Amino acid sequence: MPDDSDFAARTLVIVGVGLLGGSVAAAVRKRGLVQRIIGVGRNPDRLQAAQEAGLIDAFVTSCSEIAEPWDLGVIGTPVDRIVDDVRKLTATGSNSSLVTDVGSVKRSICDELADLASDGARFIGSHPLAGSHRSGFEVADADLFDGRTCVVTPLQNADAQAVERIASFWQAIGMRTVQMSPADHDAALATTSHLPHIVAAALAGILTEEQRPLTATGFRDTTRVAAGDPDLWVPILLHNAEAIEASLQTCAQALTAYRDAIHRRDAAELKMLLQLAKTSRDSL
Amino acid sequence: MPDDSDFAARTLVIVGVGLLGGSVAAAVRKRGLVQRIIGVGRNPDRLQAAQEAGLIDAFVTSCSEIAEPWDLGVIGTPVDRIVDDVRKLTATGSNSSLVTDVGSVKRSICDELADLASDGARFIGSHPLAGSHRSGFEVADADLFDGRTCVVTPLQNADAQAVERIASFWQAIGMRTVQMSPADHDAALATTSHLPHIVAAALAGILTEEQRPLTATGFRDTTRVAAGDPDLWVPILLHNAEAIEASLQTCAQALTAYRDAIHRRDAAELKMLLQLAKTSRDSL
Repeated sequence: MPDDSDFAARTLVIVGVGLLGGSVAAAVRKRGLVQRIIGVGRNPDRLQAAQEAGLIDAFVTSCSEIAEPWDLGVIGTPVDRIVDDVRKLTATGSNSSLVTDVGSVKRSICDELADLASDGARFIGSHPLAGSHRSGFEVADADLFDGRTCVVTPLQNADAQAVERIASFWQAIGMRTVQMSPADHDAALATTSHLPHIVAAALAGILTEEQRPLTATGFRDTTRVAAGDPDLWVPILLHNAEAIEASLQTCAQALTAYRDAIHRRDAAELKMLLQLAKTSRDSL
Repeated sequence: MPDDSDFAARTLVIVGVGLLGGSVAAAVRKRGLVQRIIGVGRNPDRLQAAQEAGLIDAFVTSCSEIAEPWDLGVIGTPVDRIVDDVRKLTATGSNSSLVTDVGSVKRSICDELADLASDGARFIGSHPLAGSHRSGFEVADADLFDGRTCVVTPLQNADAQAVERIASFWQAIGMRTVQMSPADHDAALATTSHLPHIVAAALAGILTEEQRPLTATGFRDTTRVAAGDPDLWVPILLHNAEAIEASLQTCAQALTAYRDAIHRRDAAELKMLLQLAKTSRDSL
């Protein structure tokens, strides 16, 4: 990559061309940020289709088959495959290559990749806070990241210029960036993303068939994320287990406060709780 | 009202011209279902504005001031005022007058109004499953009810023809109607509406200011209903306290199942729970 602060790269590698990887490709294309996009995945038919859809210029089914120099790699695979994919991709890079990811958990990944802070192709963790309960490159959206926040979680001793380049990349596709430690990211996301997913799933799970016709937009909104792919969410929840257990505990206490107020028919307490919640929600 | 099965009425009275009452007015107007709409409320300035907005033809600030015959009354006030407003309105009606409401709870209301099943102006409870976290007639929407479900909860010994006319009214503004006992309604809505409200509020309430920038669409969807007006929700929750306590208990057990699976790092159990939830959510 050139040495200016704005993002620029010649060749981008995307490992995992699904909703997020595909949207990175679409966003980069739309803005003309790179000359060439190489897709890496396990299923050649899917990659062929993504190429025909214009998202990628070429594809290989293994990082080891990449036969040309590349500047930036984005790992878009499920969180339980990210570490392995980063290893395989960085092995094909040069000292000027940078790799980032889009995983919803950061601590376990960054801990395992701690040695990629300085030598050779380097890794800098990212989590763009954008997504959908739908999956697959067919729903890729060039504007998915526009106006959203991306958390960048550098490894300890990360090269400041490399961190800046990764931040510039996300900014170039329309994101605000914030920098945090992987542990702080995971603690916050346990509450802002992982807990809501569990709560939505719990609500959806207890709905009986007879109750289904009696749901309205409130139930539908509150449970929308429960339609997400379990195969993506199981590793997310397990990779952030400790922080999520703490968030679940806090949530259980909050629900107990409501139950107690309702049990006591305490209108003043209930109003105070609902008003606090409304003020918090209105501030988003 | 004439004796045909399709809804028809000359004069409609709406007590409480807010989001729901105003939307009933707008929906009725759009379809030309009545000749005249009288608004009743406590604030003459608000009613004047609703009249100027074309929602109502005339208004009074007390049911006792209604100086003309009317066919149908719809009570759109908060649930802790419905019983009183039904009493005041039916006192001004005739044997052919019918009154219904839009309250989110039904058992306490129908129990207290059990004597209005047959003589004089009669009451038949309703709950149109439509709404918004916003309030006020300014956000009234003629299409708010279109394609939605309305639960009709007749009193014991209700006149079948009167029940049919109330159902026809909701159908005439685009709703599907289902008939249930008030108790069955309240038990179902505890899970499909009241519990999601509490859960959304609990999530919004535990979000810290530092976590706020790290929320994305998942958190926003899951907590949207928490922006609802506490003054409307406190009486709803207290009027359905027993059923809500039972739903909260079921929800707490579901959350414990997730916590246990996460604590044990039990991927198979977690996937099973999430898959059940996804199947339920996808069926909506």
